[in-house]
Amino acid sequence: MGAPSLTPIPAKKYCPKEPPDSCRLFYPEDPIKIVRGQGQYLYDEQGAEYLDCINNVAHVGHCHPLVVQAAHGQNQVLNTNSRYLHDNIVDYAQRLSETLPQKLCVFYFLNSGSEANDLALRLARQYTGHWDVVVLDHAYHGHLSSLIDISPYKFRDLDGQKEWVHVAPLPDTYRGLYREDHPNPAGAYAGEVKRVVNSVQEKGRKIAAFFVESLPSVAGQVIPPAGYFPEVAEHIHRAGGLFVADEIQVGFGRVGKHFWAFQLQGEDFVPDIVTMGKSIGNGHPVACVATTQAVARAFEATGVEYFNTFGGSPVSCAVGLAVLHVLEKEQLQAHAASVGSVLMELLRQQKAKHPIIGDVRGIGLFIGVDLIKDEATREPATEEANYMVSRLKENYILLSTDGPWRNVLKFKPPMCFSVDNARHVVAKMDTILTDMEEKVRSCETLRLQP
Amino acid sequence: MGAPSLTPIPAKKYCPKEPPDSCRLFYPEDPIKIVRGQGQYLYDEQGAEYLDCINNVAHVGHCHPLVVQAAHGQNQVLNTNSRYLHDNIVDYAQRLSETLPQKLCVFYFLNSGSEANDLALRLARQYTGHWDVVVLDHAYHGHLSSLIDISPYKFRDLDGQKEWVHVAPLPDTYRGLYREDHPNPAGAYAGEVKRVVNSVQEKGRKIAAFFVESLPSVAGQVIPPAGYFPEVAEHIHRAGGLFVADEIQVGFGRVGKHFWAFQLQGEDFVPDIVTMGKSIGNGHPVACVATTQAVARAFEATGVEYFNTFGGSPVSCAVGLAVLHVLEKEQLQAHAASVGSVLMELLRQQKAKHPIIGDVRGIGLFIGVDLIKDEATREPATEEANYMVSRLKENYILLSTDGPWRNVLKFKPPMCFSVDNARHVVAKMDTILTDMEEKVRSCETLRLQP
Repeated sequence: MGAPSLTPIPAKKYCPKEPPDSCRLFYPEDPIKIVRGQGQYLYDEQGAEYLDCINNVAHVGHCHPLVVQAAHGQNQVLNTNSRYLHDNIVDYAQRLSETLPQKLCVFYFLNSGSEANDLALRLARQYTGHWDVVVLDHAYHGHLSSLIDISPYKFRDLDGQKEWVHVAPLPDTYRGLYREDHPNPAGAYAGEVKRVVNSVQEKGRKIAAFFVESLPSVAGQVIPPAGYFPEVAEHIHRAGGLFVADEIQVGFGRVGKHFWAFQLQGEDFVPDIVTMGKSIGNGHPVACVATTQAVARAFEATGVEYFNTFGGSPVSCAVGLAVLHVLEKEQLQAHAASVGSVLMELLRQQKAKHPIIGDVRGIGLFIGVDLIKDEATREPATEEANYMVSRLKENYILLSTDGPWRNVLKFKPPMCFSVDNARHVVAKMDTILTDMEEKVRSCETLRLQP
Repeated sequence: MGAPSLTPIPAKKYCPKEPPDSCRLFYPEDPIKIVRGQGQYLYDEQGAEYLDCINNVAHVGHCHPLVVQAAHGQNQVLNTNSRYLHDNIVDYAQRLSETLPQKLCVFYFLNSGSEANDLALRLARQYTGHWDVVVLDHAYHGHLSSLIDISPYKFRDLDGQKEWVHVAPLPDTYRGLYREDHPNPAGAYAGEVKRVVNSVQEKGRKIAAFFVESLPSVAGQVIPPAGYFPEVAEHIHRAGGLFVADEIQVGFGRVGKHFWAFQLQGEDFVPDIVTMGKSIGNGHPVACVATTQAVARAFEATGVEYFNTFGGSPVSCAVGLAVLHVLEKEQLQAHAASVGSVLMELLRQQKAKHPIIGDVRGIGLFIGVDLIKDEATREPATEEANYMVSRLKENYILLSTDGPWRNVLKFKPPMCFSVDNARHVVAKMDTILTDMEEKVRSCETLRLQP
């Protein structure tokens, strides 16, 4: 062994040329350098305060002192893997179980929503002995190989659809197959899933799972009609598959009325697997899969252990517990319900005033504003949505777009977002929309004057 | 919207029955409840101090105050995603680049070694346009679906080997095809990879990557003969594939002589992709993929962004920077080299004394002690290894086994492990081995007296 040296290779510049960029910044033309966060506010290096309407990861507010302190308290004492006994993991599982239907009583802890969905896929395949997956159109379930395969939002642009993946129509009552004028959109969309299931079975293939975000987000902040999930679950269960509710973006009280968004689908509806991420750790990398004993036992029966180096560490669990504690202490679920109601009402008033707003949909602090070029065709107003986002940024409001045409303004702010914040954003939107309309009118006037 | 309630489902007991257990505890018959950690020591609820010889995640020591403080400092100020500019991510990439060959100058930040290896697989496939992977026998590269597929350690017990996965022999000069008496084991084992590559190509298949831990760990703390990687890389490159060095268990100065374990293979050897995890954040969920601009550009060219919610957050990067700072400040790489040398020498003395020790192999603070039943056959002494681990635990020393027969005692302690610690463990091992030999002798004596 030669003489050891700490830095064997001489220091050098980061990269000879501009590095490639696969992670896109917000406002790529004029990115923001954020240096501080507190509650629903972010601050740039000049000290300018931005209102954050989109970061659902900072669930109980950026840098919440109780969450930060919980992490620090545990980080100082012990941060190791789950090969040893520790109270935090038991307490956390216990506390999470209190928010879920009794059937969902086994918990796996991981580092990211993607890891959670990948494990859900493994669990479903192991339990059912089947391989295929049904997903909704435009869905996104994570950045791992296995999840890109079940995310039409991603695989459409990459190597295409795997033979074991089957896409059902998005239950979007504004832009989809069955709309607000349909007598039973829940049944009609569930019937579409049944049709997909039948065609899969006709090919001799077998369904392991139906994956769905309880409220599809990148698909355009879609609110599936109530009763859709229970009917879909019937079709999926009859085919021997499991129902996986992806709550990564929408769980933990965001919808206000319930703690979990899947509960909007019917009081008695219980998925077979629920996946959690993002908001669960308020920014600390935590995720969880909750499932039934039957599913867990089938997985255990393989004899192959599941071990996750960081998942379920005393620190991750302490942070998760602190988030639940703050949610309860500050009554943020009720807060989301009341602030969300005000915001929805204000946005509906805007819809009545500005024809570019085609649809305002949402529940609690999960809201989409669908911008259109034309009321009859509902043609997406993509450029206008982009323009809105950039004008709002000039007004120190961080909002972004989603949906297949990126024409849906999305609200999913930290849960401490206030009624004043709602009034402020909507007033700015009103000003910008009025301004846009005036510009259009003056252009038309110009065109009338040759 | 009905009246919101915070906890819609009444609190209840965690689980009606004993929950299934897919994550195995250490010492499952008599697990330890660890409540505190410091440096290379862990403490149970009675305050008993255990010497930790195995936790390579707590790289610079459990709860290192500078790392804990870095996390806390940043957690108080800002913890958000990488959609905004932030100095930490640039500083961290810069600092990591200083430890690596210049060619590896693009960095992706993630939450776990598994996420890193999954991304490495995607990068390799995108760059090469090929699909197949060559791995070493008994390898383990992570818990995700895609990685179980390339981990013989896992897939052998599950649904078997995928048609796109090809297994080359482990370059183990103690138990493998070519041993310490072979004139050129590096060339011989690389020739085996070439043979695999040829047979893949004869089937009309194409190789995207060769994945290898720079020092195979779960395969039994194996030290591949120097020169093996460069020769393998030649064969893999000729087939159009990439060389992926998995440094998740062994990187960051552990091998003492170099910062990265792949550097043991030859001063000029540069992998196409390096994956990092575990030790990188001293317990905080951080991971990284380093690669070349060419590979990154091919990935970027898909037009599909890579976004990781927590990866590259200001907190993760602050923690990563703190770990690098402590490594340098406390000269832990040099420390690993010198303590590792002492430990190797002490263990070699034990080998000379106790015939159950068949092989002592290692470098820096990555060491394996291969226990055998018989010198001629090298039959693995699995029960004896288990017994050793449980006797060491009674002596407050945490050590564990690895390898296909779980007969290899593995050392991969926090890097602050001292010469005194080394002397202490080896003295206890000596006592236990002597005791075991005496027991065997007295049984033999008993058998001689009818």
